[in-house]
Amino acid sequence: MSTAKAYATQSATSPLAPFTLERRAVGPKDVEIELAYCGICHSDIHMARGEWGNSTYPMVPGHEMVGRVTKVGAEVKGFKPGDLAGVGCLVDSCRTCGPCGHHQEQFCEQGAAFSYNSTEMDRVTPTFGGYSSSVVVDEAFTLRIPSNLDLAAAAPLLCAGITTYSPLHHWKVGKGSKVGIVGLGGLGHMAVKIASAMGAEVTMLSTSKAKEADAKKLGAHAFGLTSDPETFKTLRGRFDFILDTISAPHDYNAYLGLLGLDGAMVVVGVPPAPTPVAAMSLIGGRKTLAGSLIGGIQETQAMLDFCGKHGITSEIELIPVQKVNEAYERMMKNDVRYRFVLDLKTL
Amino acid sequence: MSTAKAYATQSATSPLAPFTLERRAVGPKDVEIELAYCGICHSDIHMARGEWGNSTYPMVPGHEMVGRVTKVGAEVKGFKPGDLAGVGCLVDSCRTCGPCGHHQEQFCEQGAAFSYNSTEMDRVTPTFGGYSSSVVVDEAFTLRIPSNLDLAAAAPLLCAGITTYSPLHHWKVGKGSKVGIVGLGGLGHMAVKIASAMGAEVTMLSTSKAKEADAKKLGAHAFGLTSDPETFKTLRGRFDFILDTISAPHDYNAYLGLLGLDGAMVVVGVPPAPTPVAAMSLIGGRKTLAGSLIGGIQETQAMLDFCGKHGITSEIELIPVQKVNEAYERMMKNDVRYRFVLDLKTL
Repeated sequence: MSTAKAYATQSATSPLAPFTLERRAVGPKDVEIELAYCGICHSDIHMARGEWGNSTYPMVPGHEMVGRVTKVGAEVKGFKPGDLAGVGCLVDSCRTCGPCGHHQEQFCEQGAAFSYNSTEMDRVTPTFGGYSSSVVVDEAFTLRIPSNLDLAAAAPLLCAGITTYSPLHHWKVGKGSKVGIVGLGGLGHMAVKIASAMGAEVTMLSTSKAKEADAKKLGAHAFGLTSDPETFKTLRGRFDFILDTISAPHDYNAYLGLLGLDGAMVVVGVPPAPTPVAAMSLIGGRKTLAGSLIGGIQETQAMLDFCGKHGITSEIELIPVQKVNEAYERMMKNDVRYRFVLDLKTL
Repeated sequence: MSTAKAYATQSATSPLAPFTLERRAVGPKDVEIELAYCGICHSDIHMARGEWGNSTYPMVPGHEMVGRVTKVGAEVKGFKPGDLAGVGCLVDSCRTCGPCGHHQEQFCEQGAAFSYNSTEMDRVTPTFGGYSSSVVVDEAFTLRIPSNLDLAAAAPLLCAGITTYSPLHHWKVGKGSKVGIVGLGGLGHMAVKIASAMGAEVTMLSTSKAKEADAKKLGAHAFGLTSDPETFKTLRGRFDFILDTISAPHDYNAYLGLLGLDGAMVVVGVPPAPTPVAAMSLIGGRKTLAGSLIGGIQETQAMLDFCGKHGITSEIELIPVQKVNEAYERMMKNDVRYRFVLDLKTL
């Protein structure tokens, strides 16, 4: 066992505060990582504040962790001390069910072991996340971080990166694809960068005119102002694929109208209530509305390699861990462009 | 020009009654068909009664027409007098747009010419449907009817058949696919037959226990009683593909829960109001909710050939045309197993 410094919350209404936790002894297949940075994901706030009804405390959030390997078990083949490494949302799964067999561990039929507010597959040992000085993870769930990327700015790839890469990749976005990205936040800004690098013609669809310049700087070729109803007429039938990153209530039917024949809209945001969908929004043009959840480990590595090749990282604001509560408040006001990352040497 | 006997309605509130109409002179690319039978589709009722807000009168409904060719134009290559022939929902399209180029004339960007309550592509000449003694149609929109099929029972293939075949085929249902068919009506009973013939393991999902025996006779391997909430637990994650033929209000989320990883549910029914969809119903398992609309001409011919090969027709109740108003009333009460077909020699 080893001791790690961390930031934890003790209840749905407590601020995050210093905490000490035990990491397990490094087993034969384990990798120990000294964490350097951890991104702050919106779901960290939902979980910390008990908004999804499944929170257990104390909770150490964080599933966008990167650092350097400090120790490896005897059977570990792919990592050695000194290597850059990262851990995302998943730390284990059953490894035998259909989804696991298809490298979709996020859909493990037994329920994957998530990086925090979850348990190991023994269903007893709680997991603690990346707002922490170290982590011990099975090699099979450890990712390689390309060395050409800024390490702090690479952290958000572990969740925001894979959450957007996976649907773009699965729905075969590529050269010439006409892609709409809905919402320019932590997820949306990664989607713009990744879809552009895939060769797509990318349109940012945002309620805020102020985001246009940023969107274009990030790689968007066009901008559609979704607070103007006219936009839904001028862009009607324009897109092959729309990635919808919005968690606020919005009208799916309006966006489905922007798809062409056989177009697909994939949602990765979770609005607070179900969204009414008219059958005719789908029937006219044989359209698809689908969902996507992070990505499997193999695909997460492919995403990291893709980002390494294209020099893609997140736009971040690096903050000391002591500012995490303030960061949460600013995120609630959308006051971040586009991801906070905790500097864990300040622990 | 030629004169045809028909049944028409003069307004949203009039019963259908005898009517005489003119069919155009047979042009060089036209096929004239003496109609023997025409199926009654639920949309005939919606259109006749002006329920979709786009009805023009007088209206001769009917888009499931079959008969024998009586005359062909000089340039017609695929048909000769005496041949069996049919016409479905489409009688023309622009033939130059993207969807037409991809054999998806039903999605023609200029709006296809539908068989009735529509216009020819001149956007002036009204179209009249199959409750009629004859029809004149461009060869490109004329279908060949396999001669081994009972002609009256083949009529509903032109709409109910293609509406269900197209999504099953497009989503690659085949040997071993686990398929759920929601609703055992005019569409659902064709879906059961076609999916079974494709080699799928078919489960009928119906609110009515009384339909179980029929469903199995039609080829379903299993039955799920959807009025029992327990069914949604026992069949959770069971299906690769669900075809939803229901037009009454129902909860899409419950059915999405019956899909496994990467499963797709395709709706061909249009409930009276938009249906709330929870993002998590799609995100958990990367599921798809999609729509489908009849099918293109090439695909309709492929469906007919498939049905010929497998000996598939509709279960019908053959009635004289004078009973059409009574048939409409019975359909409103779901009192038909499973399609009324008009015997047009009674005109």
